[in-house]
Amino acid sequence: MPFKITYEIDSDPSDLLIDAIRTEQTVEFPLRLTPQWIQEKVVGQVLRIEEMGDRRKSVTIGYDDRLVGNEFPQFLNLLWGNISLFPKVLITKINLPQSFLESLNGPRFGVAGLRSGLGIENRPFLMTALKPMGLSTKELATMAKTLVQGGIDIIKDDHNLANQPWALWRERVEVLSTAIAEANHEFGRHAIYAPSLNRPTEELFESARFAKEHGAGGLLVLPGICGLDTMRAIADDDSISLPIVSHPALLGSFVMNPTHGLRHHLLFATLVRLAGADFTIFPNHGGRFSFSKKECAEIVDQCFSSMSTISSISPTLAGGMTLERVPEIIKEFGRDITLLIGGALHDGDLLTNTDKLVERVRFASTN
Amino acid sequence: MPFKITYEIDSDPSDLLIDAIRTEQTVEFPLRLTPQWIQEKVVGQVLRIEEMGDRRKSVTIGYDDRLVGNEFPQFLNLLWGNISLFPKVLITKINLPQSFLESLNGPRFGVAGLRSGLGIENRPFLMTALKPMGLSTKELATMAKTLVQGGIDIIKDDHNLANQPWALWRERVEVLSTAIAEANHEFGRHAIYAPSLNRPTEELFESARFAKEHGAGGLLVLPGICGLDTMRAIADDDSISLPIVSHPALLGSFVMNPTHGLRHHLLFATLVRLAGADFTIFPNHGGRFSFSKKECAEIVDQCFSSMSTISSISPTLAGGMTLERVPEIIKEFGRDITLLIGGALHDGDLLTNTDKLVERVRFASTN
Repeated sequence: MPFKITYEIDSDPSDLLIDAIRTEQTVEFPLRLTPQWIQEKVVGQVLRIEEMGDRRKSVTIGYDDRLVGNEFPQFLNLLWGNISLFPKVLITKINLPQSFLESLNGPRFGVAGLRSGLGIENRPFLMTALKPMGLSTKELATMAKTLVQGGIDIIKDDHNLANQPWALWRERVEVLSTAIAEANHEFGRHAIYAPSLNRPTEELFESARFAKEHGAGGLLVLPGICGLDTMRAIADDDSISLPIVSHPALLGSFVMNPTHGLRHHLLFATLVRLAGADFTIFPNHGGRFSFSKKECAEIVDQCFSSMSTISSISPTLAGGMTLERVPEIIKEFGRDITLLIGGALHDGDLLTNTDKLVERVRFASTN
Repeated sequence: MPFKITYEIDSDPSDLLIDAIRTEQTVEFPLRLTPQWIQEKVVGQVLRIEEMGDRRKSVTIGYDDRLVGNEFPQFLNLLWGNISLFPKVLITKINLPQSFLESLNGPRFGVAGLRSGLGIENRPFLMTALKPMGLSTKELATMAKTLVQGGIDIIKDDHNLANQPWALWRERVEVLSTAIAEANHEFGRHAIYAPSLNRPTEELFESARFAKEHGAGGLLVLPGICGLDTMRAIADDDSISLPIVSHPALLGSFVMNPTHGLRHHLLFATLVRLAGADFTIFPNHGGRFSFSKKECAEIVDQCFSSMSTISSISPTLAGGMTLERVPEIIKEFGRDITLLIGGALHDGDLLTNTDKLVERVRFASTN
């Protein structure tokens, strides 16, 4: 079975763009100079063309699975390499060959693994971020203990926390891991700490192992910066073996243009899932970002959809969530989601707000 | 001196978006809940606002250099992390602190290093790609020898060549390196071979060393897939120490929307230069892609602009170049560019066309 990729492009009777796409993504060579067998076996083959109205058409092209050779970086290149430089090309659908899916491990934990690992049944996961940047490691540790006491499951670094002087990376990982372990013991909780792995390439894998050795229970990975294949390699590394939280930094560029790039769910569900994320953070509709209700629903659907042996993952709704919206969000997206609530917990007393969040989630999950 | 980033955004008397940008990229926390000193020292500070007409305004925000801590991944995050998810935000200018520039090595060779390494004075560099995919390693080797004979300086893998069965990566690197060395000896040339480093993360650095050991003279790197910081780390690695050719695959997403993303020159010149590329491939105007004459001219300018101790790099014009355009391109952009001509060399006899290209470049460079 080939890779089947569906593109939405401007209607044009000449279909020149269709030939441009199927050659650009394969031989990158004038068709008329290309040997016949290569034109037939290596160049993409048009499987279907459909007028959509509104001057756009939908085109599905099939690519022999040997073009990718079961390597994830080359899959990304086949998907969106040079045609990222073509105007008004939008990828709307991807069908993957079974052989490719079987070559990938996908998420190490997935929803089921997270549930058993964190001991959480029947309710959404609760995540928050340590912030604002500028607080000392000690201040962040105090904040983390309160969040554990209140009942948050996953306490991650804000994605802007890197190696700033106010809370240097190594010190922060050591102190926060210890603080959260102590608070777990004191309050009978099982919260995990997920430090940000936005580290220089030379230190990235070593930093992941450092975090694990010092007691971190997850990792925040920024695939828009380190690359999706690096996230996959972190997930695949048996010496790391921690749940991965995928963060959308920089990824907006691939989805923010309605006629160019990838549909939201292909990036924030399909690709990050193939690349080993257990949680995929994205901005929920109605917050401070611009994803629509439909785009969010499609992401959630694709996090849970059947995909060979690749586990389902937890869509992690973020971006200005408030406590008031908790029941509505759970009703809309179900109990396998993660609620990432940051700033709203700090408006007033942190412990009181966290208690309130936990109570609301419990109530909404049992009613 | 702070990082100064200039954004073009929609005009709005409330200036809410300006506050959203300067907090989103730093504390990601409600301003009114942020301690006063953090509001003043950590949150971005508005330095300048200018109405541009056309309902757009230009806003410059300064960020304390401690926010980056001289780490390249966090610089990318400060530049474009979460605001990649904001609609209609375009980055038009970047001013970098001297301390940050001094923390980076930039390109290991740069134009001057490439000239002395390749023994080329006073004319553009000539690059081509081995293609189409589907040819065997042996066929590619025969092609490479002809290209050496004709006088091409840099023979790179087509960026779509990964580890496909027709020319597996390791075999290809060994055979092509040897073939090009033999042809150099036979024809008295100094061509280099630059295999594609679009490898799985686990094998990337080892593959670069394998290529070097087997005689490759450069590396084709796809920072849109492996990440800009990975390219930087490859350039910084003394055990690799090869010229780096940066390829634009996937990078179109950051520049193809005129009101969202980065201006072309910031990505294809400033960022890839900071990240260690010696050559930066981009599609020239008038070819099969859509960059304008002005966008190309700005990229070329910024490849050569003064930037602390960071060397200037060779803008590598590609994307459907023809032999006929050689004199015009050299006149337009000067002699420190690289001409990347692929398919056009194969329309007719490869050696004859290559000879013609070399002759034209020599003529245009001395007149």
